[in-house]
This record gives sequence, structure tokens and C-alpha cells, in this order.
Amino acid sequence: MYRSHTCGELRMADVNKEVTLSGWVQTVRKFGAITFIDLRDRYGITQLLFGESLQNELDANPLGREFVLQAKGNVNERSNKNLNIATGEIEIVVSEFKILNKSAVPPFKIEDDTDGGDDLRMKYRYLDLRRNAVKKNLELRYAVGRSTRNYLHENNFMDIETPFLIKSTPEGARDFVVPSRMNPGQFYALPQSPQTFKQLLMVSGYDRYYQIVKCFRDEDLRADRQPEFTQIDCEMSFVEQEDILNMFEGLVKRIFKDVKNIDYTEKVERMSWEEAMWQFGNDKPDIRFGMKINNLVFDKSLFPNKQAVLDEEMFAIPPLGGGGATVLAIAVPGCSEYTRKQTDEITEWVKRPQIGMKGLVFIKCNADGTFKSSVDKFYNEEKLKVIADATNAGAGDLILILAGAEERTRKAISELRLEMGKRLGFRKDNEFKLLWVMDFPLFEYAEEDNRWVARHHPFTSPKPDHIEVMINNNPVIENAAEYLKHPYAAIKANAYDMVLNGNEIGGGSIRIFQRELQEKMFAALGMDEAEQQHKFGFLLGAFEYGAPPHGGLAFGFDRLCSILGGSESIRDFIAFPKNNSGRDVMLDAPSTIDAKQFDELQIKLDLKTPNA
Amino acid sequence: MYRSHTCGELRMADVNKEVTLSGWVQTVRKFGAITFIDLRDRYGITQLLFGESLQNELDANPLGREFVLQAKGNVNERSNKNLNIATGEIEIVVSEFKILNKSAVPPFKIEDDTDGGDDLRMKYRYLDLRRNAVKKNLELRYAVGRSTRNYLHENNFMDIETPFLIKSTPEGARDFVVPSRMNPGQFYALPQSPQTFKQLLMVSGYDRYYQIVKCFRDEDLRADRQPEFTQIDCEMSFVEQEDILNMFEGLVKRIFKDVKNIDYTEKVERMSWEEAMWQFGNDKPDIRFGMKINNLVFDKSLFPNKQAVLDEEMFAIPPLGGGGATVLAIAVPGCSEYTRKQTDEITEWVKRPQIGMKGLVFIKCNADGTFKSSVDKFYNEEKLKVIADATNAGAGDLILILAGAEERTRKAISELRLEMGKRLGFRKDNEFKLLWVMDFPLFEYAEEDNRWVARHHPFTSPKPDHIEVMINNNPVIENAAEYLKHPYAAIKANAYDMVLNGNEIGGGSIRIFQRELQEKMFAALGMDEAEQQHKFGFLLGAFEYGAPPHGGLAFGFDRLCSILGGSESIRDFIAFPKNNSGRDVMLDAPSTIDAKQFDELQIKLDLKTPNA
Repeated sequence: MYRSHTCGELRMADVNKEVTLSGWVQTVRKFGAITFIDLRDRYGITQLLFGESLQNELDANPLGREFVLQAKGNVNERSNKNLNIATGEIEIVVSEFKILNKSAVPPFKIEDDTDGGDDLRMKYRYLDLRRNAVKKNLELRYAVGRSTRNYLHENNFMDIETPFLIKSTPEGARDFVVPSRMNPGQFYALPQSPQTFKQLLMVSGYDRYYQIVKCFRDEDLRADRQPEFTQIDCEMSFVEQEDILNMFEGLVKRIFKDVKNIDYTEKVERMSWEEAMWQFGNDKPDIRFGMKINNLVFDKSLFPNKQAVLDEEMFAIPPLGGGGATVLAIAVPGCSEYTRKQTDEITEWVKRPQIGMKGLVFIKCNADGTFKSSVDKFYNEEKLKVIADATNAGAGDLILILAGAEERTRKAISELRLEMGKRLGFRKDNEFKLLWVMDFPLFEYAEEDNRWVARHHPFTSPKPDHIEVMINNNPVIENAAEYLKHPYAAIKANAYDMVLNGNEIGGGSIRIFQRELQEKMFAALGMDEAEQQHKFGFLLGAFEYGAPPHGGLAFGFDRLCSILGGSESIRDFIAFPKNNSGRDVMLDAPSTIDAKQFDELQIKLDLKTPNA
Repeated sequence: MYRSHTCGELRMADVNKEVTLSGWVQTVRKFGAITFIDLRDRYGITQLLFGESLQNELDANPLGREFVLQAKGNVNERSNKNLNIATGEIEIVVSEFKILNKSAVPPFKIEDDTDGGDDLRMKYRYLDLRRNAVKKNLELRYAVGRSTRNYLHENNFMDIETPFLIKSTPEGARDFVVPSRMNPGQFYALPQSPQTFKQLLMVSGYDRYYQIVKCFRDEDLRADRQPEFTQIDCEMSFVEQEDILNMFEGLVKRIFKDVKNIDYTEKVERMSWEEAMWQFGNDKPDIRFGMKINNLVFDKSLFPNKQAVLDEEMFAIPPLGGGGATVLAIAVPGCSEYTRKQTDEITEWVKRPQIGMKGLVFIKCNADGTFKSSVDKFYNEEKLKVIADATNAGAGDLILILAGAEERTRKAISELRLEMGKRLGFRKDNEFKLLWVMDFPLFEYAEEDNRWVARHHPFTSPKPDHIEVMINNNPVIENAAEYLKHPYAAIKANAYDMVLNGNEIGGGSIRIFQRELQEKMFAALGMDEAEQQHKFGFLLGAFEYGAPPHGGLAFGFDRLCSILGGSESIRDFIAFPKNNSGRDVMLDAPSTIDAKQFDELQIKLDLKTPNA
């Protein structure tokens, strides 16, 4: 062993001990005939004191930043204590030292506040990983994984590995494929998730399964997606939805306790998908704050059970998009004093292409009970008061109103709500609010093919009382324009998403476990019998031999860690992430392969675009 | 929840409780107006009693093997107790039942002693996994994994995930590759191991890393290989070989304790590679028994430090292969009374193509001190006694002698020793003997290219006192015939294998951490500077910035589990294994992919062999 102790463990109680430390040179400070070195390792930093007798040796072997150093010496009480670090009361008076390895000058500073840009830090990821900020993220990730395993173990779950070289059955996302040399012309696929395997394990009687497992999706990468990502994947047999919700809110609460020392004792809130869309404009509401949507005018075919707050005639004026369009408002607390510059800025914000609104209407609810709006020439005080009442706005609030086509406007008001929440400090990194969103539609309508697609995935069961609707109706959509009237449009899934601070951290469902219903589902998705058999014959077969009722869910491990770590980027929580083009710039991968490899795999390139 | 209890937990203390169980119908036994059903789940079997009042309902809904059943009733003390199972003192008097799912008649019996052949069980793997024997294997696997994680956690190791989509750098084994759609013409590779990543993590200061991780090798599959397999992958910084050996024999001892309740307190034996070859004829000796090789005549260029036991002239007779050949013997205890039929059978055994010997010489050491051999016409008693003394054979032993070319003969005697050990019951499944094999040659000679290849991998460091030999000599082999005289032939690696009962369960090394030495290694393996930079530029770069001394090892997780489980086949310990052609016969994978997939990936087939 090159050390007797780590750089994080020596204390006053160790004074006078002879120790050997090894680590990296963080800083070198020379004071006349004395040199101080901060030596760093994974566990901390310890100050080394090189006295006069070592100065010649030091001069002959100068130490630079990031040199790997072994130093032997005595633990000494510091005269100048640093109580900000655990080892700050002591130092090592060095008697001998050895340079274990030199270092070139790093391309950026290995400090919390680094001067390295994103690209540079990705290229030298092995140096970026030395920074305390990144190390803390990976430590948090490890702690979340360990907490997860402990909880699931205590609840009788078994970690069972499922294969990575499987069969390509593209449904929705694209598969990564792997040519098989031993079976020329054939390909494996990398799993998008272990979905069918965990269901087979339920058929096999394994009852409570989990895995923390890599999954793969060949999608065009958005800002915060990775082609390979990690899931906490779970499945249980002989359970109903309620059992699963309880088990897995228990898991997340346990992680809060183990990792953040937070006692999340309150009951996890629940909300239907329809309520989430109605009140928050999206299916993963951030419920750390209110500022709910006021549905002044909306598309009644989408919310058949809801009442309009105001007559749509009220809004039949140009700045509000004209009659019949959706009109949605939020009341922003305490912002009635916003200046013209501030309201202009918000208006510009909603007009950005990412939001796509034509404009913004605001009403200031003054402290004296009067109103001041951007539509004063269309609305008198009386009408403004009607709107203010309808939005539950009080004195001091600022009402923001968007209008336009239903889907876009709802999305925009949702974004605006989140933005205002952020600006007002309602979205605190250290406050955590869990929410179950439930009762999703089972199907979505795919316009291009005029058929249904599975909103979750094809193995999700309808709600128990919707099974009959599904079995007894023909999935074919006769009249595309009226697809919303098809009985399938109203079928709700026995599915649930777990939302944390406005992020979907997990989702799952009760599964179909009857062959007949599974076949009906596949048929609804446009698969004929031959295709069903080719792609999922093994699963349909398994359902013949005593499949138990079962369900489960999967957490996005990278995302869960990033939220717990208070970051928006999952990349910061992955040791070796890829960039937005799916490249590992450190490795320079993907890359070309040898002619011999093509030859053995019996494939060749068929490039339509210039080789990158 | 479809149950209040599992089928494995009810005891006498639960008598009179009302319970609900769910599980699979194992057996149905009718006795007049009463029906007994054994209900099975992951946790056990519980007897259900269906009284007279339920017979009509049962007749209307007949239960078959593997039906999924939910039954409610009262726990009752059995009159006819079965003390062989934990629940055998009670039964459930059923009041209500529900068939949750039917089952077709399974294609084989779901019992320990099944009637299903290998192919059938692979195709219906989800049913095979129901068998108790297979379940026990997966439970053992989970227990080994959990024990490993706990031990490593307690020793400050961190589980850090490394990427699966990496760069193809084929060295030795073939990579599986993955075409990149976003980078047309380029490919990822699946990792053969996380070797370079764990080394980068050491450079990053993570000091103690582990991962239980899938690895991939596209090799022609031998009987017990899988294209995807799992490693317990570990790496440590600031350590020397001794530290690693101690840490990881600690891990295996902990696994023995946790999983098998075995206190493996003795020191793990150590042996040099040369000793292993000399005494056991292979580099992974089974030391549960002795019967060491007696090197009567051997190739002195391979064992320069060893003394011949007997003059080779002694063996210059036809049945022993003629002068100069290698002659090796084992003394098999207590077998001097073998019949002619038995010795003939052993002779046939060594003549099989897998062993490849021309014949076998035996000498029976009779109880009365006389000898009887298959070469009596060439050797008199006196000469036989010389041989018997040289092989340390005593009265009652049977000496078996093989002769021929060094490599083949050594391999053959090694196989013969193992075979005789097995026949004589010396290789007990429940006896475990660990061994470190060390001091391997760093290089092997590749005849076809007349160059060196790395015996372990290109990142293994030479023994400290062999580093200078490597640095100061030109790796080029001028005279192919005399490659053994090249200084590189004598360089020993700072590497170690862990052997359990004659199986290599793990291996590792102290790594090179200096750029200069790493470049010398790559050059020795025939890589010019451009190739080094293309394939391993990131690693050479990392070594510029303060790489610490480090080393590690990896255990073959599948193999370790199979040995602990007393099985020779790793396939029995993998939930969804592939067959010898790399096929998953349950999924029917690999398979063809769609034209659209080829199109998007910009590749096409280039088949030289008929499509399978």
C-alpha cells in the first residue's frame, strides 16, 4: 500500500503519528524556506509542510499541480487552523517524499469553479471527474443505487440480469442493432428496456424482480437525452395498482432519507392525467407551487366533464385570439407592480419560437382594488374584475393570459407558469414534492396511419372496467375526423407516472396478462397475426402457461439522481456521457472499423450522406 | 394485493387465521368428495383442501397443472403432516377460489427431475425458470451479487457505471459492433470489459471502483461460453499486488460465508505459473487433491530451473515415445488392483482425440512390493522400482505414464489427473479450495506474425524488477526459431489469477501507469504510433496528467456462481442464456431487420454464405 491513511482522515487525535499519504498536488505555496502543499485524494485534502531540510530536494524535483505524490511524515497540530475542512487542524511535517508520477499542466483548473468549457471538459473527462462537484454527483448516484438495492432487497425483490443481445422489435423508438457474425444477415438489438423479460420472469414466478440496468434508444438526441441510459426496473406479481404505488413511493421516500436525510412523511399526492392537463397544462406538474391554470375558454371535446369559467363571447376580441380559441390564465402573486419593461420582457418571452404565442395579455390587480391591463381599450374595469374574480386573483397579483389553439396555448401557459415560478423562487432545489399522475389515455391517435398507438407501451392494461370496452369494440377508425368519438379514445390505462418537482422520474403500469387481450392490443396497433407472432410470439406463448396478474414500473436513474443533486443536466451525473451527436469525444467514438470486421460481419456501408 | 401471505410462510402459529394465497397449481389429488391441491409460488408450497361444498364449482372449473389460482380460507392443522416442507404442518381449508389464469399443459414437467430436453427447456425458458433447481441457481446468483456489493461497499469501493457504446479497439477477441445512425459509416463497439474506463477512473482519483457489469465478446462459442457475460470488475489505486490479493481473497471468503455459510479461514495458497505447469500441467490447478505430476523427462528450455527426475535414456523405448520426448507420470492411490478391463478403458480414454495420446503405460505397485506393468517386456522389476521411487508411488498405487511432445503430453497428463481425481471422488462439489496463480509470462509468442502478444492484456505491468528489461530491449524478434532466448520471453507479469477448484474464477494485474512504458508495450505488440494514438490516445493522454499506481481484477460472475452452485454449466446460472450458436431460441434472436432499419443505418448485407 502506498499510504497508511487517506487525505481525509487525520485529526487532532492522530498528532505525533508517523503516516504516509498519497495523492495529487492541489496547490504549492512557498514561504521562504518552507513549502506548503495541499495533497488531495478522493477523501479530502491534507496540508503537507516541507521544512528547510527538504528544500534542496524540492528544488531538484519541482512539484506541479496534479503531480502524484507520496509523502511520509509526522502529524502535527497546525498553528493556523482551517476549520472549514475536516483535516484543517493538522498538517504533516514531511520527512520523505516521492513523486509517483508527474503531470502536464491540466487544460483547465481542477476546482469547483473551473475555467474549462464544456467541450474541453468532455474531451478530458478523466480530469473533469477529479473536480469535487462532479465527484459529489457520482457519489450521490452511488448512494441512490445502494439505497434502492437495500430497500428492494428488504422487500423481497431479486436482482435478475436480463440479456443485452435481444431481438429487434421496433415499437416507437428505434433500436440499436448489432450484426451477428455467427448468424450472417441477422442482427441482435440492444434492449430499449427489459420490459418483456421482466414480464416473462413474472410468468416464471419470480414475483418481485428488479434491476438497475442500461437501456438503449437510437433517437435524435435532445438537450438532455443519452443514447444509453440507466433504469431502475421493477416488476411485481399478484398486485394491483395500489400495491405498486405504495411500494414505490416507499422506495423514493427511503432514497430521500438515505441520501438527503429528508423525512418525506406526507402522503404522496395523486392526480389524474386529465386534472394535470387541466390545472397545470402538462402531465408532469411541478406542485411545489400553486399558480394553477384558469381555464377561461377551452376545447370542450378534450375536457367533456369540465365547465368553462367564462363565456367565450367575453373573449371575442383580437388580442385574445378571437372567439372559440382556448383562453388560459394564471394569477402571478405579488407582481402587480411590474414595470412596462418587465411586462414587455414577459411578452417577448412568450413570443419566442420555443413558446410560440402571438402575444400576452396582462391585468395588474392593484392594491387599491383597481385594475390596469394591456387591453384597457377593449375591457372596462367591470369586465376586468370579472376576469380577476374568475382567476381568483387578489390585490397585488398579476394576471397573465394566453390565447390560441388548445394544445399550443396549454403548453405555453404551462411553460409560462414554470418560468414565473422559477423567477419568483417557488422552485427550490432543496424542496421535493412527489406526485403520482394516473389514468392516462391508453391510446394516442396517429394521424399519418389513421390508427392507434400505445401511449405507454403495448403491454399496459386498460383500467379493469375498460377491458370490456377494448375487447368488444373494433379498433379500426372508420372516420378519421371523429377519432375522438371512437370508444378506444376514452379507454384509460392502468398506468401511473411518478413526478418529482415537475420531472417524470418513473412510470409504469399494470400489464396485460391474458393472451386474448394482448392480441387485441397488438391488433389495435396495426399488427397482423403474422407480425405478432414474429415479434412477440414468445410472450403470447408464455401467456398460455399460467401468467399471473402483474405490474411494475421503471425509474429513470440518471434523471432521478440529477434532480436529487439539484441539477438540470443528467450528463453531470454520468461518469462518461455522450454529447448531443451521440459521440464520446474523449474516446472519439463511434469511429470507423476495419475492412476485416466488415468482412467477418458480411455487411458493407451504403452511405447516402457524406461520411462524417 | 391478490394474497395475504405467500405459499411459503404459514405455520402452526397461523392456525385459524383467514388467509388468501395466490400461486400455481403444482398437483391436484382427488379423494372422493375432497380435493387436495398443492399451490406453489416462489416461496414454497402450501396444501389447499377443497371440501365437499366446493366440488360442484371445481367440477365446473376444473383445475390443471400450472393454473394460476387465488384461494381464500382458514389455516388448519393437518392430520397428515409432511415435515419435509416448512409449511407441511398446516393446510388451508378453502372457502372461495378464483382461477386467475388458465394454463395449457406444459411441454415438460415443472419438477426438479424434469422430462424436458435441453432444447425444449431453452425454448420455453420461462417455464424452465419455474423449476426449483433453476430458481435456486438464480437465488444463489443474487446472493453472491449482494454479498459482493456489501463487502466492497464496506471497503470503500464505489459502483460507477461505464459506457456500453464505446470504441472498437480489437485486441485479441473480436468486438461486437453497433452501427451509428447519427454518424453514418461509423460504429460503436460493445465493451469486452470496462478495462480502460476503470483505469481512467483511477486517473480521476476514484481510488476504489467496482461494477457488476455485462461484457461482450464475439468469439466462436465453446461449450460453456456466452457472447454476453457478467464480470465483477474492480480496480484500486495506491496499491501493490499484495494489497489486491488480500482485498479479493477477503471478498471470496465473505461470499463463502454469506452464501454457503462456509468459514474459509485458512490462508489462500499461492503458486507461480511455472510451478502450476510443472506440478499440475495447467495454469488453474485443482488443489483439492494431490496426485501431482512427476516430471520424469521434460523440455528443459521451458523449465530451465528444474531437474529431471530420471535420465531420459531410461525411457528410450518405443511405448514411451522415444528418447528426448517428455515423459510424465502420476501415481494414482489405491488403484493397483485395477483389472485389465479398467486399464484398457483408461488407455482408450487417453487415446480419444480430445486427449490425443498414442498410448498409456501403467505400473501397478502391488501390496507385496512387486510390480506389474504394461511394459514388462522392456523393463525388469528393478527398473520399475526406480520409476516407482521417482514418482513417490507406494504399495497399492497405480502409476500412469504418458509420453510425447511437451505441450500435448503435459495437457494430457493434466486431464488424466483430473479425470482420475473425479473417478476417485477427490473433486467434491462441497469442498472449496482457492489458489492464487501468479508470475505469468508477460508475453506469448505469436508464430504467424513473429511478434509478441500480451498474455493478459496490454495494460498489465511487468514485475517491478522486469520493467527495466522491457524498457531497455528492442521487442523485435530477430530469430524466430530462438524466440525463447529473447529477453522479453523471460519477463514476468505483475498478474494473478484466482483459481477455485480448478477453475479460473478471476484474474487481474498491477497496471502500467507510465506513458513511456505503455507506449513500449503497445510497440511490442506491433502497434505503430499512429495506431496507438487512434486506438488508445485517450489513455496515453490520461497518463500525462498524474496517473496513480493502480491495479485490479475481474471475476467471472457466471462461472463463480456455477462453481458455488456445484454445477459445471454457467448456462444454468443465467436467466436467459444463449445456445452454442449465440442464439436465444426463446426469442428467436438474432433475426432479420427491416429495410427501413438498413436504410437509416446506411449499411447493407454483403453475404458470402447462405443466409441462415
